[in-house]
Parts: sequence; C-alpha cells; structure tokens
Amino acid sequence: MALALPVPEPPWPQSLSPLKAVDDLLRCGICFDYFSIAMIIPQCSHNYCSLCIRKFLSYKTQCPTCCVAASESDLKNNRMLDELVKSFNSARQQLFQLVLDTPLISSPL
Amino acid sequence: MALALPVPEPPWPQSLSPLKAVDDLLRCGICFDYFSIAMIIPQCSHNYCSLCIRKFLSYKTQCPTCCVAASESDLKNNRMLDELVKSFNSARQQLFQLVLDTPLISSPL
Ligand SMILES: [Zn+2]
Ligand SMILES: [Zn+2]
Ligand SMILES: [Zn+2]
Ligand SMILES: [Zn+2]
Repeated sequence: MALALPVPEPPWPQSLSPLKAVDDLLRCGICFDYFSIAMIIPQCSHNYCSLCIRKFLSYKTQCPTCCVAASESDLKNNRMLDELVKSFNSARQQLFQLVLDTPLISSPL
Repeated sequence: MALALPVPEPPWPQSLSPLKAVDDLLRCGICFDYFSIAMIIPQCSHNYCSLCIRKFLSYKTQCPTCCVAASESDLKNNRMLDELVKSFNSARQQLFQLVLDTPLISSPL
C-alpha cells in the first residue's frame, strides 16, 4: 500500500517495454502500487499488499479478484514477491538511467 | 523441473546485468531452472517446482531450504510465479536480442 502521495511515473522507454508485463504483475490489484508485504490467498493464488487485503476483508470476506470466500486467517506471506519487487524495482531504475544516459539505445526499436 | 537436457545459457550482457537478480529469484532451488508449476510451502514461504518438491518430500518431509516440517498436503500453487516466469523469460529474450542487434548498447556500461 502506498503510504505517500502517488508520484507520476516516467513513461517506459520503447527499448525496455518488454519489461512492462513483469512490472504489471508485481502490482497489487487494490492499490496498483508494487506489492508491499505481499500476502497470498492460498485457495485461489491471488496476491495483495497486506494492508490492502486486510482492509478489504474486514468488510467483505472474499477475494476481490475471483470472489472465492476468504478471511484474514487464510492469508499467508508470499515473501518471494517482496524480494522480486525489490530486485525488479532496482533493475528498472538502473536500466531507465542507462537508457537516459545513452540516447542511442532508445531509438532502434 | 527441466524435462530436456540443460542447454548452456548465453552470458548476460553487461547492460542487462541488473536483471540477473530477478532471474535468480525466479529459479527453483532444487533444479535451478525457472519454476515450472510453482508451489509454495505456506508455513515458510519457500517455493519450488511442483515435481521437484513432491519428489523431495516423498523421502524427507521438510523444506529443503529452511528445514521446517512440510508434507505434500501443505503445498499450494503460487501461480503468480508461473506468470512472472513467462513474462520475464519473454522480456529477457527480447532484450538479449535487442542488445545483440545494437552493439552500441552493450558497450557503455
Ligand atoms: Zn496494495
Ligand atoms: Zn482470488
Ligand atoms: Zn525445480
Ligand atoms: Zn522453507
């Protein structure tokens, strides 16, 4: 869950656009930010930020995506997603910088 | 689990090396290939290919990484990892090709 006001994100350079699909997968379907303490609903395999899904389940006991019955006690940490968010976000920033510093890269594709 | 003989993978171009950490996370700790039907052990959050972990648990009922007690009935699908493997692998191939086709990209870093 984003705790600060959303900062507009720079557009994806054309040459890095294949990574956009990975970026999309690492975002929570409730807040659309990167997962923050990702939790999995084991019965359907959907994932959300811990705060986002706990808040949702407190008023409706089902998965927001597929509507399977779910409650807070079902949630399990999906720590791999936290590690992926960290590594991917770092790589994304380094590659964006590389493209900005090397204008030739952005043109060929 | 890799079903074919392992094919030597091309080395990572220097300019794409920030993505290596993401690549490492998407690999199973038993077979070292990308997750194939990823399963999570919910009590410790570790993940393996379905075939790899089922084979392991059939002779030792614990997580191969952290040794927490685990059995086949604990395993849950972690479908997000399957989707991430698919998207990341596709992006990786496109970016490798881009770097190969644009020699200037590989030199600046
Ligand atoms: Zn969220
Ligand atoms: Zn669901
Ligand atoms: Zn495996
Ligand atoms: Zn474990």
